[in-house]
Amino acid sequence: MAQTVGGLGEIALVDRIIAATRAVKGPRKGVVVVGAGDDAAVLAAPDGRVVVTTDVLVESRHFRRDWSSAEDIGVKAVAENLADIAAMGARPTGLVIGLALPPETEVAWVDGFLAGVLAEAGRVGAALAGGDVVRADVIFVSVTAMGDLEDREPVLRSGARAGDVMAVSGRLGCAAAGLAVLSRGFRSPRALVDAHRRPEPDYTAGIRAAKSGAHALMDVSDGLLLDAGRLAKASGVSIDLDSAVIPVDEVLVSTAAAYNLDPLTWVLGGGDDHALLGAFAKGATLPEGFTAIGKAAKCDPDGPVVSVDGRAPAFMPGFEHFRS
Amino acid sequence: MAQTVGGLGEIALVDRIIAATRAVKGPRKGVVVVGAGDDAAVLAAPDGRVVVTTDVLVESRHFRRDWSSAEDIGVKAVAENLADIAAMGARPTGLVIGLALPPETEVAWVDGFLAGVLAEAGRVGAALAGGDVVRADVIFVSVTAMGDLEDREPVLRSGARAGDVMAVSGRLGCAAAGLAVLSRGFRSPRALVDAHRRPEPDYTAGIRAAKSGAHALMDVSDGLLLDAGRLAKASGVSIDLDSAVIPVDEVLVSTAAAYNLDPLTWVLGGGDDHALLGAFAKGATLPEGFTAIGKAAKCDPDGPVVSVDGRAPAFMPGFEHFRS
Repeated sequence: MAQTVGGLGEIALVDRIIAATRAVKGPRKGVVVVGAGDDAAVLAAPDGRVVVTTDVLVESRHFRRDWSSAEDIGVKAVAENLADIAAMGARPTGLVIGLALPPETEVAWVDGFLAGVLAEAGRVGAALAGGDVVRADVIFVSVTAMGDLEDREPVLRSGARAGDVMAVSGRLGCAAAGLAVLSRGFRSPRALVDAHRRPEPDYTAGIRAAKSGAHALMDVSDGLLLDAGRLAKASGVSIDLDSAVIPVDEVLVSTAAAYNLDPLTWVLGGGDDHALLGAFAKGATLPEGFTAIGKAAKCDPDGPVVSVDGRAPAFMPGFEHFRS
Repeated sequence: MAQTVGGLGEIALVDRIIAATRAVKGPRKGVVVVGAGDDAAVLAAPDGRVVVTTDVLVESRHFRRDWSSAEDIGVKAVAENLADIAAMGARPTGLVIGLALPPETEVAWVDGFLAGVLAEAGRVGAALAGGDVVRADVIFVSVTAMGDLEDREPVLRSGARAGDVMAVSGRLGCAAAGLAVLSRGFRSPRALVDAHRRPEPDYTAGIRAAKSGAHALMDVSDGLLLDAGRLAKASGVSIDLDSAVIPVDEVLVSTAAAYNLDPLTWVLGGGDDHALLGAFAKGATLPEGFTAIGKAAKCDPDGPVVSVDGRAPAFMPGFEHFRS
């Protein structure tokens, strides 16, 4: 019979996690001053400021163990937090993780989850610096990520100016399409299902954008329309998107056709790919990997905050966890 | 009918939390560089290193809404994290919080919880810098606290040396006794029930200990015997405690007598008061608030890691969340 965390016990489980954490070669040199195992960890913060963000994932709501492997869930939990650090123009340095587990959870699941966490953190040289493990009836994961600004100013949502070019880096709509595919009982196209299971944010795109002088930057986690609206409101501008130039993955087009849907539903409304949306000065050269998709303009109090091709979008998904 | 978080919706709830956070005058000047509301927050880390710790609390397991008010739970969740920062000899700077809530949770509960969080953080000038709110079937709270070392070295668990004086600051056993009282259906003695509901760690005791050259320092969260054992193991020493000098609150003595118990059961085995256990050089003046309770000695491989009055303790509570 497979070993469970209840059978192993909390102390042995924590020792096992700490041992796995210490064994990885992922973190950049000097990032970890004091690692897991003491009352608290100590991470380097050479800039003299620390960027910090936290996200909570709840089983059945943010992930399903029958749709995603333990490793997938570890990758995803870390990726969505590191993407928020990158969206400030910072470089991720470390993570702490809270994990609530039912006692019947297999130890192999925890091992897989941890492997995903360490692999994703390792992609950017960030360290798993500590955590907490408790008992619960469903799996809860909380991740807090930290990052360093490397002497640059943080790039906020509020800095876009009228006249700015709006540009994105990364995929849009693929994770949402993957979730739609899984919800209908399918496991392909694999590229979309994988996009849902394991987002692959480009964590250096935010740093490139910051270095190139981006006025505003934001992680697209709840869908382009909703998040562009947040950026526009924070900046006091309106944003018009040009549907003809928004990148649409070929596989989205074919899958949407099979489902008799408009792929823009996913591209404009779907989150979880962790693309970056930035505002750049008109005429400036966009950093590598960014594509212009629209413009910021002076806010018209009577007009929509976000428009597509000059018109209020046909649908404006509100992302509401509490309403079903 | 009372308003619920499901009725209010996630976006309005987050806006409400951000507004309450911005309204407080608690944080020390300059601690918050970028507050809640962007992709991530930015906190000052003047030392160039950041101390970080995280803890998870699950309803019914770590708190009960019929035993503790929303404000109590906010205080407790923050206190146990700030105590870990203090136990490194650091000064707390900020927090991020993840909150999973059933949709039927009353908005007034969230307001109370947040008031407790902000009050406790305000006691040390720390800021609530950000968070995440999601939906779940039970309340789940994750807190991550950060702190600054102010150019001191972190005081680890592993620094105790043979010959050191072991000393504690803060109460022992009161929170555990309060929980025992509540578990038996009583609400008094109030001092003990309050100790369970709202621990009152002295967050500056760790800084005083660090400044006075403490060799090792640890937050007593799972009970003196268990935590002294962890410190002893990390330091490669054994620790002998002197029961005659361990501080025992008068109310513990009278309550234990009423229950026909030995108060040392709570004092040695109970956690959650967040006393600080430190190791200090023999002959050194102990920092204000610390009381000598024992000595560290060379580890005897055949003897107990922790002894009381020279003997292996009659009971050695193992703190195991996963076994019931």
